[in-house]
Amino acid sequence: MSQSETGETWRLAQLASAVQGDLDGDGSVEIHGVAPIERAGAGEITFVANPKYLGALKDTGAAAVVLAPGIPSPIPAIRSANPYLAFAKIATLTCGGGATHRGVSADLIQGEACKLGQELSIYPRVTLGDHVRIGDRVTLCPGVIIGDGAVIGEDAVLHAGVSVRDGVRIGHRVIIHDGAVIGSDGFGFAPDGERYYKIPQMGGVVIGDDVEIGANTTIDRGTLGDTVIGAGTKIDNLVQIAHNVQIGENSIIVSQVGISGSTVVGSRVTLAGQVGVAGHLSIGDSVTVGAQSGVTKDVAPGQTVSGLPVIPHRQWLKAAASFAHLPAIRRDLRRLQQTIKELMRERKGGERHDGHQ
Amino acid sequence: MSQSETGETWRLAQLASAVQGDLDGDGSVEIHGVAPIERAGAGEITFVANPKYLGALKDTGAAAVVLAPGIPSPIPAIRSANPYLAFAKIATLTCGGGATHRGVSADLIQGEACKLGQELSIYPRVTLGDHVRIGDRVTLCPGVIIGDGAVIGEDAVLHAGVSVRDGVRIGHRVIIHDGAVIGSDGFGFAPDGERYYKIPQMGGVVIGDDVEIGANTTIDRGTLGDTVIGAGTKIDNLVQIAHNVQIGENSIIVSQVGISGSTVVGSRVTLAGQVGVAGHLSIGDSVTVGAQSGVTKDVAPGQTVSGLPVIPHRQWLKAAASFAHLPAIRRDLRRLQQTIKELMRERKGGERHDGHQ
Amino acid sequence: MSQSETGETWRLAQLASAVQGDLDGDGSVEIHGVAPIERAGAGEITFVANPKYLGALKDTGAAAVVLAPGIPSPIPAIRSANPYLAFAKIATLTCGGGATHRGVSADLIQGEACKLGQELSIYPRVTLGDHVRIGDRVTLCPGVIIGDGAVIGEDAVLHAGVSVRDGVRIGHRVIIHDGAVIGSDGFGFAPDGERYYKIPQMGGVVIGDDVEIGANTTIDRGTLGDTVIGAGTKIDNLVQIAHNVQIGENSIIVSQVGISGSTVVGSRVTLAGQVGVAGHLSIGDSVTVGAQSGVTKDVAPGQTVSGLPVIPHRQWLKAAASFAHLPAIRRDLRRLQQTIKELMRERKGGERHDGHQ
Repeated sequence: MSQSETGETWRLAQLASAVQGDLDGDGSVEIHGVAPIERAGAGEITFVANPKYLGALKDTGAAAVVLAPGIPSPIPAIRSANPYLAFAKIATLTCGGGATHRGVSADLIQGEACKLGQELSIYPRVTLGDHVRIGDRVTLCPGVIIGDGAVIGEDAVLHAGVSVRDGVRIGHRVIIHDGAVIGSDGFGFAPDGERYYKIPQMGGVVIGDDVEIGANTTIDRGTLGDTVIGAGTKIDNLVQIAHNVQIGENSIIVSQVGISGSTVVGSRVTLAGQVGVAGHLSIGDSVTVGAQSGVTKDVAPGQTVSGLPVIPHRQWLKAAASFAHLPAIRRDLRRLQQTIKELMRERKGGERHDGHQ
Repeated sequence: MSQSETGETWRLAQLASAVQGDLDGDGSVEIHGVAPIERAGAGEITFVANPKYLGALKDTGAAAVVLAPGIPSPIPAIRSANPYLAFAKIATLTCGGGATHRGVSADLIQGEACKLGQELSIYPRVTLGDHVRIGDRVTLCPGVIIGDGAVIGEDAVLHAGVSVRDGVRIGHRVIIHDGAVIGSDGFGFAPDGERYYKIPQMGGVVIGDDVEIGANTTIDRGTLGDTVIGAGTKIDNLVQIAHNVQIGENSIIVSQVGISGSTVVGSRVTLAGQVGVAGHLSIGDSVTVGAQSGVTKDVAPGQTVSGLPVIPHRQWLKAAASFAHLPAIRRDLRRLQQTIKELMRERKGGERHDGHQ
Repeated sequence: MSQSETGETWRLAQLASAVQGDLDGDGSVEIHGVAPIERAGAGEITFVANPKYLGALKDTGAAAVVLAPGIPSPIPAIRSANPYLAFAKIATLTCGGGATHRGVSADLIQGEACKLGQELSIYPRVTLGDHVRIGDRVTLCPGVIIGDGAVIGEDAVLHAGVSVRDGVRIGHRVIIHDGAVIGSDGFGFAPDGERYYKIPQMGGVVIGDDVEIGANTTIDRGTLGDTVIGAGTKIDNLVQIAHNVQIGENSIIVSQVGISGSTVVGSRVTLAGQVGVAGHLSIGDSVTVGAQSGVTKDVAPGQTVSGLPVIPHRQWLKAAASFAHLPAIRRDLRRLQQTIKELMRERKGGERHDGHQ
C-alpha cells in the first residue's frame, strides 16, 4: 500500500546514462527524487513534455530537468527526444518501488488446495476460493476476493477490494486497481416474447502479462469462450468490457469506455474517453477512436475516427465545427428558395407575357 | 462462486423435447455440455443465432447444434425459431447450477435480531446490520455488506463486495454482481445561493423479483419515496439509477446508462449502452432508445428513438449519415448564394439598362 | 448505517421560524416527519419545488406543505422563496441524524502508529494501514480500507467498501459513498514506440471540507502533485476524476462525468451528467456544461455551454433542433442547385441565341 523514495542519491550524469539521454550541463548535480515543476526544489529533477508548461521552467527551483533537445534551459538538463518516457524511467529508478515483501497475513481465508507462491505480500482480509493459484511476489491488498480456480501470475498487484471471479486467469506483472471486477457474468438474456431468460455465462477471462486495469472497471466473463485482454494493454477506470470481447496487445482504453459483446479490438488501438463500441465488430490494429465517439461498424486498421457513427477524424472535426451553423444554414436556404421562387415566377411571368405578344 | 457441469449426459432427442425444439438428425447423440462453435468437440452442443457465425458451422467439431429452421446443417441439430432462447435453456439444463448449499460461514458478523432462512450459502467475510432478513436458499459471496433492516428475497445471489444499504428490499431470485451498490444516498442538494445544503435521503429502494443487476452499478435510495426496479428487469454493469427513479417490468438497461432523478421508465423498455435520461421524465412502455442517446423529453410508448435530443430512430439514422456532409453543404450553399447574387445583379443591371433605353 | 426519525414533534410555526419561512395558516399543527406528496399523512409535511407536481397538492393527505409564495394551498403552508432549501432544512431537523456514536469495533485491523480520534463509529471489518489519522466523530462503515499515512477529517462518513489509498487527505464533514476509490494510480504511460512504460504516480489527493463523493466514483492520485477537490463540492456516482485535476469550491459534478488529467475546474461550476472534459484545460468559475457534452477547449468563467465540442448553450439548442432537418436540407439544396443550373443554362442559351441574332 505504500509508495516511498529509496533514500538513494544519483548523479545527473548517471541518470542521463541510465535513460539513454544526453547530459546538458553539470553532471555532478545530486538527484534524490522527482517533483512537479512548480514545487521541485534542491536535489529534485522535474520534466517538461507539454510545451504549455515551458513557461514555468525559468522559475523552477528544480536541480535539473528532463527536456526535449533544442529548448533553452536555465538549469542542468537531460535531453531526450521522448522526455516523458525518460522521466518515467527516472521516476521508477528514484521511487524505488516495493522490492520487499510483507508475507502472508495470518487472517488469510483460503479454500481447498490453493497453491501460493514465494515472497508474497498478502494484506489482511483477503479471501481465496478453492484451487486458487497465486504466483511468486504477488501483492494482494486488503479486501481482495478471488474465486475458485482463478490463477494470478507472478508479480501481479491487486489493490483493495478487487474481485476476481472463478476460473479467471491473470498474467504476470498485471496491476488491477481498487474495486475492479474481473469475470462477472456477461449480460446475456434470451427473450421469449414476454420475459428474459438468463443465458448461463460459462466462459472465462484471460488477462495477458503487463496489463493494467483501472479502479472500478468491469470485465465480464465470456458466455462460452473467454473474454481476452492482450499483453501490455492498459485500461483506465470505470471501463466496461462485455462478454467475449477480445483486445489485442499494447492498446489503450481510456476511462468510461464501453465495449459491447464479442467485439474484437486490435493491437496498439486507442479508444479515448467515453467511447462506445457496439457488439460483434472488428476494430483493426493501430486504430484511434476520438473521445465520446460511437463505433457501429468495423473499422479498418490504421484509421483515426470520431463521431456517432464514426467517420474519419479530420472530416469529423470539420463537420463538428459546422454544427453550430445549422440554424444559419436553414435560414439561408429558405431565403435562397424564396429568391429562386421569385426569379422563377418572374421568368414564367415573362414567358407568359412573351406568349401574349 | 463456482460454475460447473453436472456430469449428467443427455440424448439430443431429450434436449430437443425439453426446449420444445424440433429434432433434425440422430436423436441418440450424447450431449454432456455446451461450447462455442469454434471450440466445441465430442459430446458438446453449440448454437448459431447470429448469421455472421454461420460460416463456422461446416468446420465445427460439435456433436450437435441449435439452429433456426431452414439453414442446412452438416451435424445433427435442434431446430428452433428462437435458437438463442433454446440454447439458453440447454445451457441451464446442462450446467446444472448450484443446487447445493454450503451453509453459513462461522465468521458471519450480524447485528441484532436478524432472521436467516434455510439452506443458505453465506461465504466468509459477510457483514449484516441489525434486523436484516435473509430468505431461503440465498447466496451471499465474500465481502457482501447488508445494512440495517434490509430484506433479501429467496434464492437471491449477491456476488462479492455488493453493498446493500439499510432498508433496501430485494425480491426473490435477484442476482446482483460484484461491487454493485444498492441504496446509496440520492444526489440532492439545495443551493442557498452560496453553498449546497444536503437534502436527507430518507426513502428506500425496492428491487422486484427476477431482477439482475450488473457489476459496480449504483442505485440510489429515494429522497422520500422509494426507487423502484420492476420484476424481471435486467440491468448491466456501471449503470447509474438516481433517486426516485421507477422502472417497470422486463426492461433492459445496458451498460453505463444513467437515469436521472424521479424519471419513470415503463415496462419492456430497452435503453442501449451509455444512454442518458434527464430527470422527472416519463418513458413509455416498449420504448427503445439507441446507444449514447440523450432523452430530454417524455417519450410516448412504443417509440424507437435516438440522438441528442432523441428523435425517431429512422430519422436520426438519416440525419447522422448526413452529418459528415455539413462542410460540403455550407460550401455549396455559399456558392449558390454567390450565383444567385450574380443573377440578381445581372437582372437589376438588365432592368437598369432597359430603363436607359 | 441507519437513518431514523427522532420521535420529536414540532409545531408548524416552530419549523417556519427555524427555516426562516413565512407561516401561512394554522401554526399549531403538529409535525413529526416529512413525506412525499402522494404518501404524506397526518403529522407529516411535504413540499412542492417543481411546478410539475403542484397538481398533487389538492389530493395530498399531508398536514402541511412547504411552498413558494403566491401559490394557493388547501393546507397550512410554510412559504419560502426557496422551498427546496427550506424543505432540506426541515428534513434535516426532523430526521435527527446520528448524534450517537457506536465506538470502535473490536475487530478493527490497524497498522503501526495510527491516531484515532474521539467518539468514533467504526463498524466491523475496517482495515487501516500504518500512520493513519482518523478525526473525531468519524464513521467508517464495514469494509472500509484506508492506506498508509491517510488522514480523515472530523465528522467524515465513509460508507461500506470505500477505499482510500495511502497519503490521501480527506477534510472535515466529508461524505463518501459505498465503493468509491480515492487515490488510485493516475492513467499515465509513456510509449517507447512499441509498448507502454508506466509513469509512477507519486502524488496524492486532497479532498476539502464538506465534499460529498458518490458511490463507485474514482478519483486518481496525482502523478507528482496532488489531485484536489475544493471545499463544498458535490460529486455524484460513477464519476471519473483523473490525476492532477483540480476542482474549486461548491461545484456540482453529476453522475458519470469524466474529467481528464491536469484539467482545472473552477468554483460554482456545474458539469451535468455524462459530460467529458479533455486534459490540461481550464474551466472558469460559474460555468455550466450541459449533459453529455464534450469540453475540448478552455471555457471562460460564467459561460453556459453544450455540445461536442461545446458552444454556447442557446446556440447548441437551436443547432440540435435543426439536426433532424439535415436530410431535408441536403435534398432542398440539391433541388436548388438543379434549378439554378437550369436557369444558368437557359441564360447561356439566351445569350448564345442573342449572339446569333
